[in-house]
Amino acid sequence: MNSFDFHNPTKILFGVGKLEQLGEQVAACGSKTVLLVYGGGSIKKTGLYDRVLTQLADAGVRTVELPGVEPNPRVTTVRKGIELCRAEGVDLILAVGGGSVIDAAKAVAVGVPYEGDVWDFLMRKAKITAALPLGTVLTLSATGSEMNGNAVITNWEEKLKKSFGSIYAYPQFSILDPTLTYTVPADQTVNGIVDMMSHVFEQYFSLTPDTPLQERLCESILQTIIENGEQALADPEQYEARANLMLCGTYALNGGMISVGVQTDWATHAIEHEVSAIYDIAHAAGLSVLFPNWMKYVYRSRPDRFVQFAVRVWNIDPAGKSEEEIALTGIQATRDYFTRIGAPARLADLGIGDSEIGRMAKEAVKFGPIGSFKVLHEEDVKAILQLSL
Amino acid sequence: MNSFDFHNPTKILFGVGKLEQLGEQVAACGSKTVLLVYGGGSIKKTGLYDRVLTQLADAGVRTVELPGVEPNPRVTTVRKGIELCRAEGVDLILAVGGGSVIDAAKAVAVGVPYEGDVWDFLMRKAKITAALPLGTVLTLSATGSEMNGNAVITNWEEKLKKSFGSIYAYPQFSILDPTLTYTVPADQTVNGIVDMMSHVFEQYFSLTPDTPLQERLCESILQTIIENGEQALADPEQYEARANLMLCGTYALNGGMISVGVQTDWATHAIEHEVSAIYDIAHAAGLSVLFPNWMKYVYRSRPDRFVQFAVRVWNIDPAGKSEEEIALTGIQATRDYFTRIGAPARLADLGIGDSEIGRMAKEAVKFGPIGSFKVLHEEDVKAILQLSL
Repeated sequence: MNSFDFHNPTKILFGVGKLEQLGEQVAACGSKTVLLVYGGGSIKKTGLYDRVLTQLADAGVRTVELPGVEPNPRVTTVRKGIELCRAEGVDLILAVGGGSVIDAAKAVAVGVPYEGDVWDFLMRKAKITAALPLGTVLTLSATGSEMNGNAVITNWEEKLKKSFGSIYAYPQFSILDPTLTYTVPADQTVNGIVDMMSHVFEQYFSLTPDTPLQERLCESILQTIIENGEQALADPEQYEARANLMLCGTYALNGGMISVGVQTDWATHAIEHEVSAIYDIAHAAGLSVLFPNWMKYVYRSRPDRFVQFAVRVWNIDPAGKSEEEIALTGIQATRDYFTRIGAPARLADLGIGDSEIGRMAKEAVKFGPIGSFKVLHEEDVKAILQLSL
Repeated sequence: MNSFDFHNPTKILFGVGKLEQLGEQVAACGSKTVLLVYGGGSIKKTGLYDRVLTQLADAGVRTVELPGVEPNPRVTTVRKGIELCRAEGVDLILAVGGGSVIDAAKAVAVGVPYEGDVWDFLMRKAKITAALPLGTVLTLSATGSEMNGNAVITNWEEKLKKSFGSIYAYPQFSILDPTLTYTVPADQTVNGIVDMMSHVFEQYFSLTPDTPLQERLCESILQTIIENGEQALADPEQYEARANLMLCGTYALNGGMISVGVQTDWATHAIEHEVSAIYDIAHAAGLSVLFPNWMKYVYRSRPDRFVQFAVRVWNIDPAGKSEEEIALTGIQATRDYFTRIGAPARLADLGIGDSEIGRMAKEAVKFGPIGSFKVLHEEDVKAILQLSL
């Protein structure tokens, strides 16, 4: 196990009816003017928008709105939010939505006190040293953004998708009511499942020795997602399946709690960001295509970890199989599960051909080689993308 | 799963050499005068005391000392600490030690801003609404007190041992260097192992339905403790075993992260507190005696949970066994493990007879029946104590 620091100050309010505590949470932040950040308007159809406004009115705060955050949130939208905050004297950001909405809200929060352009943080040209306080109401189980300090933002003009992470970007509070995910369509539920499983993969496949607790925690989350994912798809209003998925999504990426002292990988995320920066596909659709191919490309770095994955996560019977066979069976089980829940297996399924592979591979390693389980250079990224066509 | 709130603001600094960051952590708290709280003086023998003083001097703070905190920390010592803080204008408490030292430091921290007697908090006569900031340097893997808001304090004159929990009592920071536990004697290492396993038991044996992730997290910690406990005892300076145990102790009780939305039990702790309030034995010695007997007394409340415990934690082969046989085999495996590492099995091993059983049973249910897996009344507590003689 490596040395580490861990600090996750986000307060979670989880369960049916927790939305009714939104007003008091906002009041506890001492807020007078809130920026309400949301997406394409589904929260208006479901009635959540009205419920949130009632809570904010009861808390006696003025509300300014930033609607229309995109599924791959754009820096242009973030800049609009920052201007709004400065013009209106906003003192609290409230994100109501999934990971994209929360990520955009985080970028607004860190951008307001910064004199330069917020994109500097994404290009690692400046360090985040302050932020407006942030609260969230989660409507989609997926990214874990509700309990961490990370955000992914797209610069559509430059075809770039980059991320930042900062202790200042952790939400002060996050309201997690599983019933708010009942209306999430099947395809987005699938995306959420793939996304949270991918977050665990990035932390589980590691060369760091002697991390049994972290490995067991990762396996715990994967097992629970696998069981509850199919239940939630079969019966979208089954509370327990939705609640278990929601908790898994949060724990899968809550500041690295399950991978403290572990060197994590994140190469597959880096590659996917280049795909969705160009093609504007759902992040999880790209991950579903790429991850089993990344696994096939890298498993020889440490076959025993893939054997453990096969046996402990997928219940593969190792009897009579070679290490390689067990590892490959586990990887195939991952692909089969993704296929069973309706996630794509090939870039072709997303209408993507080989024309941009060179550009994506080059951009993925722009800041240097990626990954740690196997360090990937431009040629490796190209090979994984070729495998994924 | 039940609804829940979760909030754990403690910052953890984990690994070799993290002690060298103590000064900057203290400085970041803006402290001018620190109360250094410690126990019987082992930190002077190991050199840790000098290293801490050097860090504090480098941070430019004045240091006042509260030495001599007892293994079952006394409210009289806490009161002494509170008076010192008030007289010396202390603005930060620094606990250097194990759970007892940290618990005493927490009680001092919450007691300073309170006008009444700190014991009021333990007797639930007053609610904690403020505290001095607190930092810790952990020297013993056991209680999890380094990352939660709980404390257990003994009133020796009244033969009472009571607890409190408050968000105000979470440490601001905790420094966890596994090498600081190399010198922990075998009997205290054993106590730590029993203590952290017991914390998981209290959260794992629950009637709350549909909590698969929480159950898997509990099993993860138990499996890791079981493996690494014996390794640490066999080779006290094996870094990885000490590090894994330290992380397990912290995660086992870090504000309930592994049992969010789960109704926990804590009856065995309540019973043990009555035993050690009268006999001044090590808390974990009492737990080692009591827990398998509690298990035998209550397992019929939900045999499937004990079957799961036997199979997933102790790797019991269920083939050809009845549910009852599997459950009892798991309970026996628990007792066997405790015996194997040298923890006591009977109250007689601790020199305790049946003379005070009536009094302990009565006191244990003073605030009402205890536990939730099976609700225990005075007669039940008596029966468990009788089983333990």
